[in-house]
Amino acid sequence: MLKTDFKTYLKDKNLNLYKDKIEKIKNIFNTGGKMLDWYYIDKCISPKEIDSIKNISQNIQKNCDLFIVIGIGGSFLGAKAIISALTPYFSKNKPEIVFAGNSLSEEYLQELIKYMDDKEVIINVISKSGNTLEPSIAFDIIYEKMKIKYSNDELKKRIIVTTDPKEGILRELANKNDYLTFDIPTQIGGRYSVLTTVGLLPIAVAGFDIEKLLLGAKQVNVDEAFRYAIIRDILYKEHKIVELFTFYEPKLEYFIEWLKQLFGETQGKNKLGILPSSSNNTRDLHSLGQFYQEGTPIIFETIIGINKKGKLKNNLYTHFVEDINMIALKQVAFAHLDAGVESNLIIIDKLDELHLGMLIYFFEIAAAVGGYLLDVNPFDQPGVTAYKKLIEIELKK
Amino acid sequence: MLKTDFKTYLKDKNLNLYKDKIEKIKNIFNTGGKMLDWYYIDKCISPKEIDSIKNISQNIQKNCDLFIVIGIGGSFLGAKAIISALTPYFSKNKPEIVFAGNSLSEEYLQELIKYMDDKEVIINVISKSGNTLEPSIAFDIIYEKMKIKYSNDELKKRIIVTTDPKEGILRELANKNDYLTFDIPTQIGGRYSVLTTVGLLPIAVAGFDIEKLLLGAKQVNVDEAFRYAIIRDILYKEHKIVELFTFYEPKLEYFIEWLKQLFGETQGKNKLGILPSSSNNTRDLHSLGQFYQEGTPIIFETIIGINKKGKLKNNLYTHFVEDINMIALKQVAFAHLDAGVESNLIIIDKLDELHLGMLIYFFEIAAAVGGYLLDVNPFDQPGVTAYKKLIEIELKK
Repeated sequence: MLKTDFKTYLKDKNLNLYKDKIEKIKNIFNTGGKMLDWYYIDKCISPKEIDSIKNISQNIQKNCDLFIVIGIGGSFLGAKAIISALTPYFSKNKPEIVFAGNSLSEEYLQELIKYMDDKEVIINVISKSGNTLEPSIAFDIIYEKMKIKYSNDELKKRIIVTTDPKEGILRELANKNDYLTFDIPTQIGGRYSVLTTVGLLPIAVAGFDIEKLLLGAKQVNVDEAFRYAIIRDILYKEHKIVELFTFYEPKLEYFIEWLKQLFGETQGKNKLGILPSSSNNTRDLHSLGQFYQEGTPIIFETIIGINKKGKLKNNLYTHFVEDINMIALKQVAFAHLDAGVESNLIIIDKLDELHLGMLIYFFEIAAAVGGYLLDVNPFDQPGVTAYKKLIEIELKK
Repeated sequence: MLKTDFKTYLKDKNLNLYKDKIEKIKNIFNTGGKMLDWYYIDKCISPKEIDSIKNISQNIQKNCDLFIVIGIGGSFLGAKAIISALTPYFSKNKPEIVFAGNSLSEEYLQELIKYMDDKEVIINVISKSGNTLEPSIAFDIIYEKMKIKYSNDELKKRIIVTTDPKEGILRELANKNDYLTFDIPTQIGGRYSVLTTVGLLPIAVAGFDIEKLLLGAKQVNVDEAFRYAIIRDILYKEHKIVELFTFYEPKLEYFIEWLKQLFGETQGKNKLGILPSSSNNTRDLHSLGQFYQEGTPIIFETIIGINKKGKLKNNLYTHFVEDINMIALKQVAFAHLDAGVESNLIIIDKLDELHLGMLIYFFEIAAAVGGYLLDVNPFDQPGVTAYKKLIEIELKK
């Protein structure tokens, strides 16, 4: 299922020193409280919401070519991660899923507006506060286009709002116009929201099994996630301040982007924390591999492998291609260890909803534990207000 | 054209101490020698080769739907960077350009083989040595498929080999079968090869103006690139060991991947060097922004901005979308500076061939200078042999 190897590619680590700390953190989790609802999968989403998502998704699949998900940060990365990981390389989902509101590129929005012309479109705007800059602008522009394309009655079937249960400008708009809405749980932060309505609606629309995701999350060995969190903390104290999330299946690219937010926002406080980065292998071995092996020694790796059996033959080696991929994963980790770059290894049996659910919950726990081990609040992000304020001042001029 | 601002978002730096070192490095460049031909744009490619690429590209555009470029590292990142930067978001090049041989994902190759079924295909395999693992396997599998699809005579028009002028298994194959070939210059390393046949053929096939790229490279103010290299070196000595290449136009994603190889392989030696990383803004402000502002203080930024005039209106602000994007760029840099994260700013007037040519040459010079300032050889990559050897041993078992 999800197997960990915290030995082969690591130097010896003494985990015993963490015993008391871990007891305390487990206590916090088990007591529950503010922003901790993500820890209880059943609080992430209700059976009624699951049914509703499943029904609506089937409807959407029948009635649109293009499903636009508007959101940024936690309101986009989780769904994008899972959908990218499960979609074939050379074919599109039906409906095609497109994300917007995650940049301020004018070109992107202009092209998207044009792309909507000859398509049946449904949009899902996701924002807890309703007033985040990028999705607000994207929604404003796409909404204008929708109002030209469709009647008010038709819009009621084509605009879906995922937002705070009670407050905010999006909630008001939905109430006023009778748009379909989903609630974002109040005690779950953006970066922990992939298994709530935030992530699960787009994932279901893309045709993937959201119940399998939730089932996978429930099967995680929580103690293993704690072990991983402790090893990260030890490595950090040994001055390894960059964690490379290394993967050998390019489809995991956005899963790693999701991990960057999860770990970066959770731990990067008080001038502390491990900088999360990524290595898309074997591609990046041919760009950053030299640095990993011989550059400034600040890196450790967490490798996510997939235990697929190879099937594709070639004339050069007796091994199938995917088996060569796994050989590369292991031998590269050995070469890096020789150079002092240690690795945690996490292996899943298959790239499917069940195993992605496991990875999600495994890393959510590890990130939160990591925050507590640094004595920072794992669930706030005070540092993002600084630049937002400066932008606001300039926009009001 | 290409403007730099090495003042507004930086603390004071004393560049005078570098005077002698810089004189020496300029001397090396101007004397020329081993692996330094990239410095002389006219040595990157001859007028005859440019003509040949232009003619062949027109032919390819007429005779294929799918152009597959097989290569990894420097044999793929440059072309991919330029093509991604210039291709619209919501439409494909004609012919469609697909890259292969840059991972060991079996799924990718399997799907690609199937995708080739109903398309007219031409392939360009790029490898100096001819025996790099990933492109060798991809070429083997794609070549087998081509031999099923086409007659030997037809293959002569459909397989283009870019490799060493004299040696290697690909050169032999091309000679034997009378395939069209392009020479990779012997005195230019992979990460410096985008303005040679390696990068320029795929870029021309994608419909872009390769002469404008070369023209842009020739217009670079070399002294500015030296200044940037010195500032990076000073920041590094102030313990800023991660350089974020920050961009506000998502199309630059692969340009930054190209930069990662350029700087990572050039400097990451002798346990030294700045780790190149990326920030795809404003997306990543909502994932890593917290860390930039308040995490472990090991980062400086080099921001690439595009001075586009906004055109797209919205109902929320009086500013056009792209102008808001530029406001964000500047205000975020101020917020980061307040937190101790300094930024170099590089602004181009337009995202086109001319300005991308400028960026390429500007960064190539800066990377090489950076290598010399660390007293490492900027043009080798000894560290990549370690893992390659271990993989080889395992594959021969």
